[in-house]
Amino acid sequence: MFLDIKLNGDSPIYIQIKNYIEEMISKGMLQYGERLPSTRELSKMLKVSRNTVIAAYELLQDDGYINIVKGKGTFINDIHISKQENWYIDWSKKVNKYAINSEKLDIMKNELQYKKGMISFKSISPDENLFNIEDFKRAFLNRISLEGNRILNYGYAKGYKPLIDELLIYMINKGVDIEHKDILITNGFTEAFDLILSSLTNEGDNILTENPTHNTAIKLMKLHGLNIIGISMKTDGMDIDDLLNKIKNNDRIRLAYIIPSYHNPTGIVMPSQKRVQVYDILKKNNIPVIEDGFNEELRYGGSHIAPIAAISDKGNGVIYAGSFSKILFPGLRIGWILADKKLISIMESVKRSRNIHTSFLDQAVFYEYLKQGSFEKYLKKVKREYKEKYKFAIECIKKYIPYKYIYGEGGIHLFVKLKGINSREVLKRCYTKNVIFTPGDIFYIDDKGRDTFRLGIARNSKSEIEDGFKTIGDVIKSMT
Amino acid sequence: MFLDIKLNGDSPIYIQIKNYIEEMISKGMLQYGERLPSTRELSKMLKVSRNTVIAAYELLQDDGYINIVKGKGTFINDIHISKQENWYIDWSKKVNKYAINSEKLDIMKNELQYKKGMISFKSISPDENLFNIEDFKRAFLNRISLEGNRILNYGYAKGYKPLIDELLIYMINKGVDIEHKDILITNGFTEAFDLILSSLTNEGDNILTENPTHNTAIKLMKLHGLNIIGISMKTDGMDIDDLLNKIKNNDRIRLAYIIPSYHNPTGIVMPSQKRVQVYDILKKNNIPVIEDGFNEELRYGGSHIAPIAAISDKGNGVIYAGSFSKILFPGLRIGWILADKKLISIMESVKRSRNIHTSFLDQAVFYEYLKQGSFEKYLKKVKREYKEKYKFAIECIKKYIPYKYIYGEGGIHLFVKLKGINSREVLKRCYTKNVIFTPGDIFYIDDKGRDTFRLGIARNSKSEIEDGFKTIGDVIKSMT
Repeated sequence: MFLDIKLNGDSPIYIQIKNYIEEMISKGMLQYGERLPSTRELSKMLKVSRNTVIAAYELLQDDGYINIVKGKGTFINDIHISKQENWYIDWSKKVNKYAINSEKLDIMKNELQYKKGMISFKSISPDENLFNIEDFKRAFLNRISLEGNRILNYGYAKGYKPLIDELLIYMINKGVDIEHKDILITNGFTEAFDLILSSLTNEGDNILTENPTHNTAIKLMKLHGLNIIGISMKTDGMDIDDLLNKIKNNDRIRLAYIIPSYHNPTGIVMPSQKRVQVYDILKKNNIPVIEDGFNEELRYGGSHIAPIAAISDKGNGVIYAGSFSKILFPGLRIGWILADKKLISIMESVKRSRNIHTSFLDQAVFYEYLKQGSFEKYLKKVKREYKEKYKFAIECIKKYIPYKYIYGEGGIHLFVKLKGINSREVLKRCYTKNVIFTPGDIFYIDDKGRDTFRLGIARNSKSEIEDGFKTIGDVIKSMT
Repeated sequence: MFLDIKLNGDSPIYIQIKNYIEEMISKGMLQYGERLPSTRELSKMLKVSRNTVIAAYELLQDDGYINIVKGKGTFINDIHISKQENWYIDWSKKVNKYAINSEKLDIMKNELQYKKGMISFKSISPDENLFNIEDFKRAFLNRISLEGNRILNYGYAKGYKPLIDELLIYMINKGVDIEHKDILITNGFTEAFDLILSSLTNEGDNILTENPTHNTAIKLMKLHGLNIIGISMKTDGMDIDDLLNKIKNNDRIRLAYIIPSYHNPTGIVMPSQKRVQVYDILKKNNIPVIEDGFNEELRYGGSHIAPIAAISDKGNGVIYAGSFSKILFPGLRIGWILADKKLISIMESVKRSRNIHTSFLDQAVFYEYLKQGSFEKYLKKVKREYKEKYKFAIECIKKYIPYKYIYGEGGIHLFVKLKGINSREVLKRCYTKNVIFTPGDIFYIDDKGRDTFRLGIARNSKSEIEDGFKTIGDVIKSMT
């Protein structure tokens, strides 16, 4: 039996031996009272050192699998895994409405998926080849040597204090007044938004939002059973007349969700004056704002535009949800909510009940990375790269794709409106030619957007952009 | 104005200068059209190199705060932060029932808190001084050099594949049949349990549980509006008669939540035969089991006892929630759910809608740590330490505390029943003598347990254990 062990270089030999014997015991191949080969015998059999076998046996004894009797030998313990008759449950009938809807609204499961070899414009993830891994390593090694034990043990629900302080300064520099406000660290924007909705809404509540908007936000609003009121978009953001109308026609609107910078999917940046206008209208109607600070950092030119949270000054009507995920290290899942102190304190308890806290290791390393100036350095680099790519992509659209309108003014994605062509049909045909992108309708809360699509370009080379857009253009031309 | 900049060694000088100027602009101290000192002037003023000032100005230009006009100078852009009249919301009146309950049930906010200088037996966190940081560093450096770019970018909701595979083997070695089963990686046990309840229960559902049980689990069941049916405990776990009775008297019980090993708070290990008995009863009544694999690894002696998930064999009636948090690196927040494949697939969508995925960096480093054998090595060390501490703590209780009963048989905490003495009163008096522990009533779903308390000992030295227990004992003696 022991000659079956296939030893490999993946992990220490003594652990491989231990795992093998555990498995044999669990499967009933080695039974209560049976004697194992002596350490000397087994070491010969496997051609490994005797100490290796001794180490394996010691671990097995520690775990209660075997009993080493001095002078007599090594015996299997009474493990008692009495396998019972099978019990089969049809879980798909046991799950609740929320779980069913989560799966139904999961675009990872219901949309065409990327296959190897394709040119994909689906993703709006950053280009990982631009990550400065050496700086990240340095941040890790610094932090771990300063307080490795501490950051690997339990932390606090609100977050890692030095990171919170750093982000408060970051928000001050954006013009935000932080008096009577506080920050809660979350697992990215998605958790931030889910915590806000979980704390502030009830099924059936009305919520205002730009239409189209971020698909994950739509999914979450639907999962919370909210009644989504979409405001149509002009080229500079929300249509003010539509906003006023919808507010007039809908009672008790609970919240508004807005992406003022590099709006997803359109890429529109709402100008300062309009931000003030929208703020004033919502304030007058007492509709608190959830501001999504999406890609605010990816400014390629023009004046700095302050977030709506800055306009609100010492007021507390704006909840700001920030994240660097779309630019830097999404794998870490770090985001934050800046809001009224009391509200943050309540949401801290909600966060604690959800998952205790966000990884303290990640927060601490991220803090060090910001503090050592690596983020600014990185931002400078990616802005240059993305700006160039963005300009090139615009040129390629103009050259190859018969569009009606290209929205937005930057960021790492483009949103295109076609001349009455169904983008899902375009996608279906492009897919057979190994090109994939995101159909625009998933960003709409109603039946609109069938003639739009989104092109994420951060991870594509220029030649991929050119080839891919040409394919898309050819398909569209073949349909008209 | 610029002479105010207090430069320090914490972060790069050019970033400090940039932040200072951004703050001045945001506060309106530097206004549209104003001219900044030339790079030469400012470098002299601040006694830094001119390149430092140039780097700061470049970043400010990138962010749209200033405009560098060749040959003319550097000017403040039109930033338009028009602060509006304050808007004040009383958020405590806006939050919903769930958020209010989260705060009300948050023991971090409602129980006596540790203060510096106290001897604390509140925590059941591991002793961070036992962490093998060097092994962890090695795991990080290996993984990051192999695939740093990849693990810092977006991953998958289900988890990091190599870690899932490793945990599947780990479960096989515990005797679990994994055919038609799968694993979902979560942010620790708390998220695992929350995802399960979120997917499988509706408000008002009945759920069975040991009484007392893990306080966080009680909190979550309450937050989900469940009707908790407590089964009283004997010294070897659930009282079978009570279990049968409660099942008879309650219709449609949705789920059972059980901690068979080192039960929290009692430390009881349910024997194999009893596990089978409980399994059979629940199966017969079609009540699926959530098995909490709490501290299963901390076995100090005796035969290995297989989890209930192993008894269920090829059946799918058991959902196993695992985590190493109570032993290793809780700061990382990594746990997992092993369950029926279809159920995992649905919960994967729920997980995605909550926070996309658990940190891929943490998962990858954790995987490497397991793979390189560090976990086994660490476990060997901590078992020795904790076992010794546990034995010593038992001795101290016997010596100093007039108890009625000490529950359990290992782990890193003790659960003590007093002779009709109110443990909250004991706590109140101990607190003034700088000793703190967890009153037992928070683990009960009813009004019981007022004469019990839990003592976590992992992080205390022997002399702290002796001194602290003596204080507790003296207080109790003074009350009788």
